[in-house]
Amino acid sequence: MSTSDPASYHHGDLKRALVEAALVLLAQEGAGALGLREVARAVGVSASAPYRHFRNREALLAAVAREGFLQFNAALQAAAAGVPESEHLAAMTRAYVRFALAHPALFRLMFSPDVPLDADPELRQAADAAFASLAQLAARVAPQEPRIMALATWSLVHGLSHLLLDDQIRRVDGQTDEVLAAAVTRLLLTPPAR
Amino acid sequence: MSTSDPASYHHGDLKRALVEAALVLLAQEGAGALGLREVARAVGVSASAPYRHFRNREALLAAVAREGFLQFNAALQAAAAGVPESEHLAAMTRAYVRFALAHPALFRLMFSPDVPLDADPELRQAADAAFASLAQLAARVAPQEPRIMALATWSLVHGLSHLLLDDQIRRVDGQTDEVLAAAVTRLLLTPPAR
Repeated sequence: MSTSDPASYHHGDLKRALVEAALVLLAQEGAGALGLREVARAVGVSASAPYRHFRNREALLAAVAREGFLQFNAALQAAAAGVPESEHLAAMTRAYVRFALAHPALFRLMFSPDVPLDADPELRQAADAAFASLAQLAARVAPQEPRIMALATWSLVHGLSHLLLDDQIRRVDGQTDEVLAAAVTRLLLTPPAR
Repeated sequence: MSTSDPASYHHGDLKRALVEAALVLLAQEGAGALGLREVARAVGVSASAPYRHFRNREALLAAVAREGFLQFNAALQAAAAGVPESEHLAAMTRAYVRFALAHPALFRLMFSPDVPLDADPELRQAADAAFASLAQLAARVAPQEPRIMALATWSLVHGLSHLLLDDQIRRVDGQTDEVLAAAVTRLLLTPPAR
């Protein structure tokens, strides 16, 4: 692709194109391959063009992580939308694990200490929205301690995602990741009426 | 320190010294700084001496991770030893989180996909022993599904450790990591009689 004039992008479109190129690079080559120069090359603009939207690599990573949280939240919502209300939390926790396994590099980036949530208000907002989706449903399981229950639920699915991603779990007879996620969720996150 | 003849170490002592130097390097400079050359320099032997015990960097990392799992398991056992039996699991889960926060680089290395458990039988054995300590106690909470309960417990404490390590959790009024770990454990891991 030849290098285009960034002015040929409508306002906002270049930023969008850079973030999308970064998502592809991240999935294909990992976070180490992500830089302003690399995304400029992928999009076909000059090496200086990304600086119109990102002051440095950290700002690009924050924008990528934000996009990750938006997609993540959409996946959680979509999972809950398709099932009866009593199964919303279970569906959402399975979607959490599924997202982590489908997008390992993005998932790691979203939760990396190298991408501090508080450095970018839009990133913080997207992360909080995803967490709030889960927290609201989790709170119903233990209404007397909604915040601790939300944190416990989050810890549970986050830990399971990491153990699966990092290949720490020995599978027995046909237990797929989905089956394990469902079993773990059912066991610990059943509402008090059980 | 001048470079010593590795023959001046008793058999086994050089290996032990190299692993200990690696643990210090890991804690001080992170996994990126860990190499056979670096540990040789730290111990004061020639660059080729570590090859008497480790065929490559991966073998050194596996030995360091194994040492991590041995220390980790000892910490879990010690935590349980000091409290009544009904509190063993809670004490052990708090010890899990405490270990992760006290030794972040070691904890990440132990669970890194770059250090495959099955590449080294001694590493696998040490990791399994640590997991078995937790699993045995967890199984008592849900005896009808011991394996899933063990995995759920492990996921819970592993996820909480990661969220705390990666600075993802907003603290409210005086909630220390220990307080959060205790609250999360109590909420989800209380035996069925609750």
